[in-house]
Amino acid sequence: MPTRLSIAVDLDYGLPEPADVLLQIAAAALPDQWIESEALDVWSDLPLAAVPGEEGIGQRCWSHAVGRFTARYAATLVVDRLVHPLHRLPPTPVRHLPGPVVGYLMPSRYCPSDKLEGFVRAEFAGLSGGALAAALTEWTARSLRYRPSGSTGTTTALDTFASREGVCRDYAHLLVALARAAEIPARCVAAYAPDVTPPDFHAVAELWLDGGWHLVDATGMASPAEIARICVGRDATDIAFMTVFGTAQLIAQRVRVDRLD
Amino acid sequence: MPTRLSIAVDLDYGLPEPADVLLQIAAAALPDQWIESEALDVWSDLPLAAVPGEEGIGQRCWSHAVGRFTARYAATLVVDRLVHPLHRLPPTPVRHLPGPVVGYLMPSRYCPSDKLEGFVRAEFAGLSGGALAAALTEWTARSLRYRPSGSTGTTTALDTFASREGVCRDYAHLLVALARAAEIPARCVAAYAPDVTPPDFHAVAELWLDGGWHLVDATGMASPAEIARICVGRDATDIAFMTVFGTAQLIAQRVRVDRLD
Amino acid sequence: MPTRLSIAVDLDYGLPEPADVLLQIAAAALPDQWIESEALDVWSDLPLAAVPGEEGIGQRCWSHAVGRFTARYAATLVVDRLVHPLHRLPPTPVRHLPGPVVGYLMPSRYCPSDKLEGFVRAEFAGLSGGALAAALTEWTARSLRYRPSGSTGTTTALDTFASREGVCRDYAHLLVALARAAEIPARCVAAYAPDVTPPDFHAVAELWLDGGWHLVDATGMASPAEIARICVGRDATDIAFMTVFGTAQLIAQRVRVDRLD
Amino acid sequence: MPTRLSIAVDLDYGLPEPADVLLQIAAAALPDQWIESEALDVWSDLPLAAVPGEEGIGQRCWSHAVGRFTARYAATLVVDRLVHPLHRLPPTPVRHLPGPVVGYLMPSRYCPSDKLEGFVRAEFAGLSGGALAAALTEWTARSLRYRPSGSTGTTTALDTFASREGVCRDYAHLLVALARAAEIPARCVAAYAPDVTPPDFHAVAELWLDGGWHLVDATGMASPAEIARICVGRDATDIAFMTVFGTAQLIAQRVRVDRLD
Repeated sequence: MPTRLSIAVDLDYGLPEPADVLLQIAAAALPDQWIESEALDVWSDLPLAAVPGEEGIGQRCWSHAVGRFTARYAATLVVDRLVHPLHRLPPTPVRHLPGPVVGYLMPSRYCPSDKLEGFVRAEFAGLSGGALAAALTEWTARSLRYRPSGSTGTTTALDTFASREGVCRDYAHLLVALARAAEIPARCVAAYAPDVTPPDFHAVAELWLDGGWHLVDATGMASPAEIARICVGRDATDIAFMTVFGTAQLIAQRVRVDRLD
Repeated sequence: MPTRLSIAVDLDYGLPEPADVLLQIAAAALPDQWIESEALDVWSDLPLAAVPGEEGIGQRCWSHAVGRFTARYAATLVVDRLVHPLHRLPPTPVRHLPGPVVGYLMPSRYCPSDKLEGFVRAEFAGLSGGALAAALTEWTARSLRYRPSGSTGTTTALDTFASREGVCRDYAHLLVALARAAEIPARCVAAYAPDVTPPDFHAVAELWLDGGWHLVDATGMASPAEIARICVGRDATDIAFMTVFGTAQLIAQRVRVDRLD
Repeated sequence: MPTRLSIAVDLDYGLPEPADVLLQIAAAALPDQWIESEALDVWSDLPLAAVPGEEGIGQRCWSHAVGRFTARYAATLVVDRLVHPLHRLPPTPVRHLPGPVVGYLMPSRYCPSDKLEGFVRAEFAGLSGGALAAALTEWTARSLRYRPSGSTGTTTALDTFASREGVCRDYAHLLVALARAAEIPARCVAAYAPDVTPPDFHAVAELWLDGGWHLVDATGMASPAEIARICVGRDATDIAFMTVFGTAQLIAQRVRVDRLD
Repeated sequence: MPTRLSIAVDLDYGLPEPADVLLQIAAAALPDQWIESEALDVWSDLPLAAVPGEEGIGQRCWSHAVGRFTARYAATLVVDRLVHPLHRLPPTPVRHLPGPVVGYLMPSRYCPSDKLEGFVRAEFAGLSGGALAAALTEWTARSLRYRPSGSTGTTTALDTFASREGVCRDYAHLLVALARAAEIPARCVAAYAPDVTPPDFHAVAELWLDGGWHLVDATGMASPAEIARICVGRDATDIAFMTVFGTAQLIAQRVRVDRLD
């Protein structure tokens, strides 16, 4: 059953020096999530430029500002997605992977999956495909404790594997790293979802199984049927909602996601 | 002036257990390098599958083998490329970068460029665009010592920045990491080139300047006018000539690149 | 000429749960720095225990508290130390090092000197002994920028080597790591010194040359003739002024060091 | 019941350039292990110097050689040690730790225990003292797979925690790191022991419980009653059997440990 969501975002930052700002905050228009209405207002002292996000999903918006940077996004959208129970999905041998998916088998800056191969082999022997993906998800959900101050912007999945705590970004990174270590392509997804507490940009994982990408939220806060993707990428480096090429100070930030009807 | 190259590769590996093997050894067909003739023979006990490489450049070949894995590649190709002196190229503000290039600003597994921003800011202040790229290349070439045993498969650009030694992979990783830290998009390129000593698969960098990618070999062994790309990617994880999903032992490997005419 | 210093420290922390607290804030009594008067008041709900610091230098004070933890230290002391110009000190072959000094050649948690051997070999070839130590100090002082927010409690000397910025802890870590990479034993020293800006616990290095330890402050803020050691160790892990075995929140902290006379 | 051991070691290395060599191969004379007879022959072209090991335990031997370096050690010794079952030992609050033991609570180069605190807290909540130490040992023994090529000289306990495999050094590092994360002082011990397969220098852990150090071999290969310590330290950096300040190539190495009677 489709879900209608209303999204409202306000960003307000101070920029002591002139800086280019890369913004990824608009929900992506995709077959399983369509935009009914949206408005993106970005303060920029030079013309805005919109370019596609990674994999052509979503939109990156380039702007330039000094002193004060504000952006506002409001949208109404419908998520209508068939969610397949992970554990029933059959395994895909890596040699059947399409070209654009292969890169999501590889370790990345915050998902050094090469380090975790031994653990995955030892702990999840005998499992494959969806059953393995479900076991990795369940393991991540059970092993981590959600703690807002439990990580920083440079925390890697290996750090989280040892510290056993973090925020949505860390859950997504660890699940993605474990999946890649298990030879399941995995990417990180920035998203909007209702019930995220505290309300904020959310990060989840997407696992490639049975010929398609499947959304998974290891924090358990969001249901895959209600997640609206903003963009995808190898890890947090690709999907940050804002990347400032210079220095910025947070003044205020608000994200609100509501179910309509 | 165009260069004609003859390439011959023989790979011979032992696979104690059945394994999927991903091969990237065919030279890519591109506007500035075209294939006159080629033959790729891969031993596989299951049907081969060819899929595009990263960015649609080159070809990844999936195979499956057990006991013994051999592959042979022979090609004649022509490289005809206008090489622009780096230092003359004007700077591009990041906000003018096209979508598919943005990801090459980001840190990756072996190019943690976020760690090197301070060094770049301190050492190369005042430079931008091609002058900055040329300075980073010159610095890398001058600061590193080529030493075959000076690194391993898990050496990062940060390790190399401190150890000041390595092989072509390390030169490419460090230059790529420095360039990204300097807000210049950069990717790693697997390549064939004459005069590489000892003859082997080669790794170089590609920097995005003035609206296009520019080949740079910080080892100084290969001239950009004579480099034939195999594939591109964020770092060595994407451009490995062979990735075995299992265990493999080297039996023999030979790479030969000759200038014709 | 001796320097008389007056030291006043106030620590005030909140401890949400009962915790053991290890304190190292008393200046050490040593041949080149003697205590005229001192008072250490530590709030503890269990008996205090004083044990020697690393190398028997200074004092560690164990306490236990819950809710609120406060400590106050006041002292008057005289530093009377002959400071030898580093660059004149002759080299000592490592095989002449006494037993207790050997460990200070080894890499430690925040001083992974093994990673920096290549850089030291490449950059400082031909130097040894005090000339080498002076060159490493001068290089560190020149290459780093003092920036309070430029590091965190988990920043390593390798991070600082790349970021080129930090606080006194980072200057000390990097100099210590470089010295060890250069086969010069080096340790970290927590200290009081006048003119440190902002006034705070200070961290400096001690290098073993010509049969003795020599104080070096790569930040240039403190003169070796005026530094009063609190304790020594392999790196910040050994010389922290306070280690809480649990959680603590800073309420207030003040360090004041004045020259008397 | 005492165990008599016969030990025979032969080292043979090539030194392309003159180098100082630090050797730690003689069994330590200690109350629970005494030397009946021993002979250490070290080839050195400069006078040998013997200095105490870390904590005054065992002996470091400095030599100097070029071209060829050989050493031979033969000893007969008796180990007579009361082994206390770990799980019965009562906990010691950290505030009761003696001065020289405090440093063994701290993270070190290869035992970054700070990273593992979250895991220990999550997995071993409610345990303390010997029961906790026994649980950590059992967990390490059960979770790791002994694999000779499963690690290198730069593998850290965090790497091993993720790779779940390694050699005796890695077992010792991981157990030591976990113990420190659990606020139990822990050090690494180089040792001789019978039944080590293949016969080699062995590495085990020593945990501080109930006022004393207790030997623990997480590999399960050696019984604490039959282990003869060579030296102790924070991690492998302190207890290496040979540290060459230059380059060395292995020509031959043999370690033999036999039970007598």
